[in-house]
Amino acid sequence: MRHIEQGLEQLKAMLLEMGALVENAVYRSVQGVVEKNEELAHQVLKNEGRINELEMQIDDLAIGLLVLQQPVAADLRLVTAAIKINNDLERMGDLAVNIAQRSLDMMREAVIRPMVDIPHIAGLVQSMVRKALDAFVNRDADLARSVLASDDGVDNLRTASYHELVSYMEKDPSNIPQALNLLSVVRNLERIADHSTNIAEDVLFLVKGIDVRHHNEERLAVHSAPVAEQQ
Amino acid sequence: MRHIEQGLEQLKAMLLEMGALVENAVYRSVQGVVEKNEELAHQVLKNEGRINELEMQIDDLAIGLLVLQQPVAADLRLVTAAIKINNDLERMGDLAVNIAQRSLDMMREAVIRPMVDIPHIAGLVQSMVRKALDAFVNRDADLARSVLASDDGVDNLRTASYHELVSYMEKDPSNIPQALNLLSVVRNLERIADHSTNIAEDVLFLVKGIDVRHHNEERLAVHSAPVAEQQ
Repeated sequence: MRHIEQGLEQLKAMLLEMGALVENAVYRSVQGVVEKNEELAHQVLKNEGRINELEMQIDDLAIGLLVLQQPVAADLRLVTAAIKINNDLERMGDLAVNIAQRSLDMMREAVIRPMVDIPHIAGLVQSMVRKALDAFVNRDADLARSVLASDDGVDNLRTASYHELVSYMEKDPSNIPQALNLLSVVRNLERIADHSTNIAEDVLFLVKGIDVRHHNEERLAVHSAPVAEQQ
Repeated sequence: MRHIEQGLEQLKAMLLEMGALVENAVYRSVQGVVEKNEELAHQVLKNEGRINELEMQIDDLAIGLLVLQQPVAADLRLVTAAIKINNDLERMGDLAVNIAQRSLDMMREAVIRPMVDIPHIAGLVQSMVRKALDAFVNRDADLARSVLASDDGVDNLRTASYHELVSYMEKDPSNIPQALNLLSVVRNLERIADHSTNIAEDVLFLVKGIDVRHHNEERLAVHSAPVAEQQ
């Protein structure tokens, strides 16, 4: 095996470990809110250190590979995608920590009502995280596109929850502190979804060599023309 | 001039252009809120495209330098710092867009009161952005440390505004929509401050060769021992 292949395999393995840790953090943080489970929230806070450490190790390995192995073409795309995905995963870990902190704030409050759509949004966001990571592992452009397509659904649910929570606040001001915590949870989930979308875009860049960042028109074309692209 | 020096000069120049655009976006977005100036908000939305374009160009140049020029030591640190700073600047640009959008939402509402501490927080955050960029240009570790030290001030002001805005909501539910917009502005400003802190940390890495990310103890030591470090 060439030196660079060993390095790339190690990079992928570390990124998958990072992905698993972050997926877990997102899952636990959300369950901490929904089940009012303090132990889950504390686990998320405890594991943040490992995620941050791994982020720096992955960064160092990726930069080392660029400099020492001078990868080209698909190998170069893999390393640059790894740098970006690593960064998105670390931020998703931070957002899970935010959610865990909100759940601790809310732990002793009576539930205003069944969490509006939070379990529903959380399920959708978790499936985006899972699919984005699977798309990376299996270099699956179709799966990556399905992540991009899910993002609008999250945005719609977010807007609906926002209006619902505002109306609770208006009805009874004593609901305000809890409603603000729930708004924060929804916003953090939405941002986790955005980072999953970034990862899916990186996977498309990796597999197809096209850069879909910041190009909504092209991105829509990628969405709507999967058949033409597969020919 | 060596090839790599030309590349590094170009990289710094592009990053400074990016920094100037983002600083401007932050300034205009905040003035859009404070002055209820719709034109400023629209300028922020219009300039987002240029910031996103420049982000991709800087990324491409930096990766190209790593692969083709194999920089070492200080040159390598400059390129990796540039990649991180670029990413932070692009996100700061997004946050300025968020603030501009909130200002458009609020444009036609009567002001509940003089914006709580928003002009004050905004002034502090803008000075952090400015200092972080100056610290990068002048490789000024002391200035970078002063950015890290300002972050606590922003956090305290943020907490105070939060409580003040919640009390406005509780007093009169008709304040809720505007107070939520103002909370969002404060939160976006706080995140811009966080990205300025990231840039300051990258400057310390660049100048001193120490990585202060995710190491609060070391970071505090860096804060409190500037004299010892300068000896």
